[in-house]
Amino acid sequence: MPAYSIGVDLGGTNLRIAAVDQQGILLEKITLDAKVTLGRDHVVNDMCEAIQGLAAKLRGASSLLGIGIGVPGIIDLDTGMVRAAENLPDWADYPARAEIEKRLGMRVILENDANAAALGEKWLGAARDFDSMGMLTLGTGVSGGLVLGGRIWHGMSGMASEFGHITVEPAGTRCGCGNRGCLEAYASATAVVRMAHRAIASGAAPSLARAAGMNGDFSAEVIYKLATQGDEPAGQIFRIVGRMLGIALSDLVNTLNLPIYVVGGGVSSAWEAFSPSMFEELRKRSLVYAATDPDSSERSRAGASAHVTPGGSSKTIITRALLGSDAGLYGAARLPMVVET
Amino acid sequence: MPAYSIGVDLGGTNLRIAAVDQQGILLEKITLDAKVTLGRDHVVNDMCEAIQGLAAKLRGASSLLGIGIGVPGIIDLDTGMVRAAENLPDWADYPARAEIEKRLGMRVILENDANAAALGEKWLGAARDFDSMGMLTLGTGVSGGLVLGGRIWHGMSGMASEFGHITVEPAGTRCGCGNRGCLEAYASATAVVRMAHRAIASGAAPSLARAAGMNGDFSAEVIYKLATQGDEPAGQIFRIVGRMLGIALSDLVNTLNLPIYVVGGGVSSAWEAFSPSMFEELRKRSLVYAATDPDSSERSRAGASAHVTPGGSSKTIITRALLGSDAGLYGAARLPMVVET
Repeated sequence: MPAYSIGVDLGGTNLRIAAVDQQGILLEKITLDAKVTLGRDHVVNDMCEAIQGLAAKLRGASSLLGIGIGVPGIIDLDTGMVRAAENLPDWADYPARAEIEKRLGMRVILENDANAAALGEKWLGAARDFDSMGMLTLGTGVSGGLVLGGRIWHGMSGMASEFGHITVEPAGTRCGCGNRGCLEAYASATAVVRMAHRAIASGAAPSLARAAGMNGDFSAEVIYKLATQGDEPAGQIFRIVGRMLGIALSDLVNTLNLPIYVVGGGVSSAWEAFSPSMFEELRKRSLVYAATDPDSSERSRAGASAHVTPGGSSKTIITRALLGSDAGLYGAARLPMVVET
Repeated sequence: MPAYSIGVDLGGTNLRIAAVDQQGILLEKITLDAKVTLGRDHVVNDMCEAIQGLAAKLRGASSLLGIGIGVPGIIDLDTGMVRAAENLPDWADYPARAEIEKRLGMRVILENDANAAALGEKWLGAARDFDSMGMLTLGTGVSGGLVLGGRIWHGMSGMASEFGHITVEPAGTRCGCGNRGCLEAYASATAVVRMAHRAIASGAAPSLARAAGMNGDFSAEVIYKLATQGDEPAGQIFRIVGRMLGIALSDLVNTLNLPIYVVGGGVSSAWEAFSPSMFEELRKRSLVYAATDPDSSERSRAGASAHVTPGGSSKTIITRALLGSDAGLYGAARLPMVVET
């Protein structure tokens, strides 16, 4: 009998549940409102009912390997406790794994949602041909995940891959974490909108001012559309996004020398607008990237040759994510297939 | 019969060779001049003769597991070729492993010297109780090594752990690699001397000017001595070293969440002068460090709580290396004990 697992992507607004087989084929998918304001018990009830419904539907046709759940927070992997979850306040210090396993009578694996997204892109997305990869997710904030040698790298206490808090401008914009100049303060959707408001306040961005003045949402997407139409202040914002991403990626390339880094999340839709300055920064700042640049194996850079010579056929790929908002859902479904317990 | 291996630390000036048993006990040690100007064949001859002498001396008492050699350059691990070595120019594209194995009739493992130093500190030094660790070596340049899950992390093409080229000040001092504001441009011995000369040129550092004017070498060590005597311009230089180290370490802590980071190399002798500003920067810039700070499990930092809660008993240790200049030698000797071929 073929085997499948059920993945859950527990977001602040949506609760998405999918049955996926071992080849990565989507068997069933359910999207529910995540009624987080009604409390965690309500959310867990909805989740467990949907999982049981899916399992009942597939019973006899395929055998269920387990349940993987991506949670937007920090997970204690040993105990299966949610330690902190910004958008799910009553999940903090909640023994989620034990509660859900009790309800379902079945093996459950929790994972941080950004790590699950990285695993999804590694399994079925942009990094599917690679054993190791890094992923940056540019959403409301900036998060990330690392897969090293086929396994999610959690670090000592599940807090690895906080790429959004790499310092890219030491005296720069204040970040929500208290630090100045974190990547998140420049490359998140929130930061794009903030930079646009600053440009409007300067008086030199009439198109942005007009867009912000219209009712409806003034989003990173709207600002990107202006950039694609050639609006200079909007374009400048994405050049800053790219430059700051380039600095953070240079640090990651120099530190880990991975074969592929995947950029996902909503802001990655603006790839055309930010990637030129991102690659420019990478070539300038990372001697490891310069030695492994896929676009210029022959390009020589003053100074770099003293440290490294081009690394045979090894190239560093930096590319857009492929799975969009499904990366975390597929990654969650992958967990029971790859995690030993 | 007990077993041992032979480690070689091939430096630009010294060639050091040691026989070390599986418990890390030093059995024999030889230090030779590395006559690099006489060419690589001369160096290889001296090395092989010394290794054969050691092996003959220990024959019958202990069985030889293999030879590990730390090389100051980039190694192609598959082929055993030295790809580039700044201070050993005629070793570039030299099939060192094959040549030395042919000479010795014995298994030889090459490794980058900074990676070997990390492995040494992980085996017998400051990180001996940990399975994963990072090491920064502050010498003439700044290099580094990562041990993840007990194994050296090489990256895709042996270029991982270029911590000296993490950007810490995007518009800062020009680095030898061509980039601006690399850690190496602030935290190497070379950078310390350069900053001192700049302070002297400003006219506001009379003690530094006096020390530089005396014949003999005006080194990072001399500048550190002035700092310990309360000289303000000298102290300021090490506060900059600490601040920049703190930024780079914050990026590493946020990215990898390792249990321990070890700081070694000559400049680490000035720990008392640079570590206060290093830790200050870490607490400010790394939400992961703030949540795992061994000195303040109760300290709360505005903003950090939104992202993380203190990680149980998991603490991030940042400490001085213990093995001094022997780290690379012990690490090289460790290679045949841990590397599968």
